[in-house]
Parts: sequence; C-alpha cells; structure tokens
Amino acid sequence: MATIKDIANRLGISISTVSKGLNGASDISDDLRQLVLDTAVEMGYSTKRSKKVEYRKLCLFVTNVEYKTLDTFGYDIVLGFKQNAFKHKWDVTVVEIDVEFQEQNKYDTYLLQHGYCGAFILGLALHNPWMEQMKTTTMPTVLFDNFIDGNQNVGYLGTDSREGIHMAVEHLVNLGHKKIAFLNGSPGSLVSDERQEAFESAVKEYNITCNENMMAKGFFVADSAHYHVPGFLKEGATAIVCGNDLLAQGAIETCIKEGYRVPEDVSIIGFDNIPIAATTEPPLTTISQQRNELGRCAYTTLRSLINHVSISKTMLRPQLVERESTTVVSRELKK
Amino acid sequence: MATIKDIANRLGISISTVSKGLNGASDISDDLRQLVLDTAVEMGYSTKRSKKVEYRKLCLFVTNVEYKTLDTFGYDIVLGFKQNAFKHKWDVTVVEIDVEFQEQNKYDTYLLQHGYCGAFILGLALHNPWMEQMKTTTMPTVLFDNFIDGNQNVGYLGTDSREGIHMAVEHLVNLGHKKIAFLNGSPGSLVSDERQEAFESAVKEYNITCNENMMAKGFFVADSAHYHVPGFLKEGATAIVCGNDLLAQGAIETCIKEGYRVPEDVSIIGFDNIPIAATTEPPLTTISQQRNELGRCAYTTLRSLINHVSISKTMLRPQLVERESTTVVSRELKK
Repeated sequence: MATIKDIANRLGISISTVSKGLNGASDISDDLRQLVLDTAVEMGYSTKRSKKVEYRKLCLFVTNVEYKTLDTFGYDIVLGFKQNAFKHKWDVTVVEIDVEFQEQNKYDTYLLQHGYCGAFILGLALHNPWMEQMKTTTMPTVLFDNFIDGNQNVGYLGTDSREGIHMAVEHLVNLGHKKIAFLNGSPGSLVSDERQEAFESAVKEYNITCNENMMAKGFFVADSAHYHVPGFLKEGATAIVCGNDLLAQGAIETCIKEGYRVPEDVSIIGFDNIPIAATTEPPLTTISQQRNELGRCAYTTLRSLINHVSISKTMLRPQLVERESTTVVSRELKK
Repeated sequence: MATIKDIANRLGISISTVSKGLNGASDISDDLRQLVLDTAVEMGYSTKRSKKVEYRKLCLFVTNVEYKTLDTFGYDIVLGFKQNAFKHKWDVTVVEIDVEFQEQNKYDTYLLQHGYCGAFILGLALHNPWMEQMKTTTMPTVLFDNFIDGNQNVGYLGTDSREGIHMAVEHLVNLGHKKIAFLNGSPGSLVSDERQEAFESAVKEYNITCNENMMAKGFFVADSAHYHVPGFLKEGATAIVCGNDLLAQGAIETCIKEGYRVPEDVSIIGFDNIPIAATTEPPLTTISQQRNELGRCAYTTLRSLINHVSISKTMLRPQLVERESTTVVSRELKK
C-alpha cells in the first residue's frame, strides 16, 4: 500500500504538498491537485483514517433507480444501508451519478478526493462508464446486482434471482398453468440475464409451453407491458411472470384493456414487492426482495471489504407473497 | 410459529409436561420426551431464548474434515467461528457427526433437545444422511460449501471455487503451459462439481489441451495422487491443478518418484493454502481460502438467519499465493 511519502517521492514534491492535494487545500493549483490524486490512485493509496470519527465517511451512489419516496424500489435499500451505517457511527452521503457524472469523474479519484473509505453503488448498468473501472478499483466497493470477476475490493449484493423466478413459475404450475409468458426487465443488466436463464431452465424443468413470442424485455417500466402483453395473449398465455412490480402493474392494465380478467383469465406475478403491489387492482402476487435487509447487508459487506475480508458475494433469498392476481387456471381462455 | 401451548394442545398434555420434554427433565418417560420433541419439530417450534445469556448456545457440527490441529483444513474455520461467536457472547459446542450419528439423531430434534439456537455444519457431503433434512429444517443453519435450494433457514458459505480454479489456470497459462491436468477432490461434493465445471470452462477459454485422461477425482487425499499422476505425465501434462494442498503434496511426491523435477519439468498448484503448503519441497503455489474469515463469516451469516434475515449465500474470494512449485514451462519434458 502506497504512503503519502511514496507519492511525494514519485512526484518529487514535498509530503505537505501531497497532503494538500489529497485534502483539497486551496493553496495549490487545480492541476497539481489532480496530479496528486491521479498518482495516489495509480499507486493504490487509500485513506487509513477510518478510526477517526470525522473521517468515517461512506458514499452511496445511485443511478437508474428511484429511491426518494416510500413507494420506490430504492427507498428501503438506501434506508437499510444508512440505518446500519449510522448505528456503527459512519456518515453516509447519497450521490446521484448519471452517465455524464461518471464520464467527468474517475471513480477512485472521486472517493479519495472526498475522503470516502468505501462506497455502495445502487443501479449501475453493465454499459455505464464506471462499470469498467470496477474491474480495477482499489476502493472497497459493494455493487447491488452486479458481479465483478477477480477484484478483491469489490463485493456483490443481491437477491437470488434464479430462486425467485423458479418460485414464481412453480407457484403458477401448481395452479395448473401450462402456458406462461415472461416479461423480463432491461437488457444489459445482470439480473435480467440471470432471470432469463432461470426462466428458460424452469420452462424445461416443468415442461411448460413458452416460445420466443412469449418472452420479452421490458426496461422495468409499466409502459413496455402495453407493448408486449397483447402478443403474449395472442399466443394463448394464461399467466405472465414479470421482471418487477411496475411491469406487472402495466400487464394487469393491458390485460383488462384487452378484455381479459385478472386473475380469472390471466394470472400475473410481479417481482420486488414494492408498496404498490398491495394496492393494484387486484392486489399483486409477487416475489419479494427484502430490501431493507439488502441495504443492511450492503453495509456489513462493505465493512468487511474495508477490513480486508474480501466477500465476493452476499445473496438473500426471495419470498413468495401471495395476493390476488394469481389463481387456478381456467379451463379455457375467454377469447 | 408454534408455541409450547400449541404443542400441549396437539398432544393433549399439560404445558408443564411439554416444558419438561423440551428441557430434558428426568421425571417424564423417554418415549414421551421423544414424542414432545418430534411434535415440536413437526410444528416448527423453536426456542426463542437467545437473549438470555445462559441460552445463547450454538452448535458447530464437523464431519469429513480434520480440524483439531493447526495444520488441518478445518482448524482456522472452527477458530474463526468461535472467535466471532464468543465476541458476541454465544457459547459454541463442537460436535463430531459421523454417518452413524446422523442416522441416530434427527437434526432438528437434536438441536431442540440441546437448546441450540442454530448451527454451522462443516464438511457435510451430498450423500450424508443429514443433507436431506437440510431441505426442510426449521433451524437457522449455515452450511460450509453446500447450497440448499428454497429453504429460508439455511445459508451457504464458501470460497468462490470458480474464481479460484480460473486463477490457477490463468497463472499456469501465463507461465506458458498448454497441457494442464486436473486432479480434483471427492466426487459427490458441491465444490468438486463446481471446480470441475470451472476447470472445463477455463480449458475452453484459454484454448489449452486437456482430455479425459488428464482429469481425475482424488478424494482430497495425497495417496490418490500416486494413483492418477503417472497417467497425467504419460499424456504429456506440464502442469497439474490440484483440488487441495494434500493432493498437490502427493502430486509432487509422485512426480519426483517418476523422475520428473518440480517445477522445472512439471508445475503443480494446490488449493486451500493450509500450513503444509509452505513446507513442501518445493514450497507450494496454491489458491488460498481465507479460512479464519470463513469461520467468522459463518457466524455473521448464522446470526442473520437467527434474526430472520435469510442470507442464501456468502462467498469469499480466493487468492493466489505464489511459491516455488510453479514456473515457466520448459521447452520439452525431460522424458
């Protein structure tokens, strides 16, 4: 691990100048500060100040995920992370990172510059600029729903998608469904890929009918259900597994608009169990993610990484929450 | 969750008799005690006494794994578990469970009978009697290197085997090896299956030569190396990846006995990094498992399960420890 002295030697400047660069003092030039930070990152320097209360700072980066109100997917995750971190006397800053932000800031440099000891990143997509930097970051980092191969500093946290999709299909099969469609989330996300694989393997295992016209990717937004669901219905699907609750909400709306009853004609099952799931009409059967616990576990995993215990994966089990949007298959479709 | 009263109602006996049955009092018959325990297990009763110090008891079951002395695989895992549990004021009992023990005791009944709030099981093989009971146990349980589908009470803990085998093959490929053999561990263990898959995928990824005669399963004991390694050498292997350090130690001995030098003629790489790895001749390059940390994480995972946070998987990263048993491939084998 490089020290401040190592950085000073490399750059041929004094230790106090390096300190100023790392601590954001105003009496050195911006160019020199950037050079100090870049060199510190390159040499694997990291702040060792986590025992002093004033420096116990963690960052929670959020992108592509709603989190500000109680009804959003991210709310409980952010809350759980903060609750557990605060309990252990860490300060947490939430920073929104759009693509432009990621392009303008190097990940390690940003953390170092702001004195963060580590970060939890919620919502990073495979094609986002920072994703590439995760392969080499020297900063303790926990990624929600993203796995990085071979970097000791990065841990994965998520819900077991395979088990969740399997539960959903098993639930429908037990209700007699044999033609089950799948409205997955966004392409280019690890969970969508995992869920696709899980769904296809469940189709084989339960010997149910599903062809390519009965599977689609829907970007996790309700609108895309309106686009895909009519096709599923034409194929004769009696049930639809959705990649999240918003897609399921859209699927219910579309079915009703097309003249089908939910659940009498078509059973619909969501994923996540966000608050709207209890208030859709009918209330939604869904695969629950324990989101507050995911946030709490993100903190414990991050703390382990900060303490040089390289946890590569922490996975929680999903749970089936049965409400009213699924029922036994009717003998024939209305249409 | 069933209460003592529920059990009493079911059996038509008094609450105090149920209490006696659960607490091992001597003034009821053995048959009645067994009936109370069996019924308690069937109804999903579990002790809720974890806040009273005298009842903070965890059990660490061990089978198929050596753990008593510093040079064994299990030593640091057991130690790490105890260290973390003791720190949080839990009492830990280590119980050895051979097949006979497992056949004579029902898992849930045993825990309930002895007042354990949960257990960590080290070494259970897929074919062991208790494995089947893991699918339905209502007791918080962490399994080392074994994954159970769909039971919220059971968590998996282990090192990422895929990443470990990948690291080993990459290390050898970087040294110029193109013919690499694989001496895997026991058949019928989850890690052996995972490592087999990982090795075969690495073979494809790096486009190296490996046929069926260059892969074998060796039961994790040195002796089996003597049986398989001569065949590998005949096939022209210049390197051998081994499923643990004991197999690697046996592989070194066999190579030397057959007139090959290690590492000049044949590079050998182990798995685990137990203490003997540093003292073999030559010292062994190996894939390290952080065993003390695994034990510590087993405790934190178990504590989460006891608190109804169903962690399904906690995985740690392996690390490559380079010593002297691997080197750049020589142009030709001596023979």
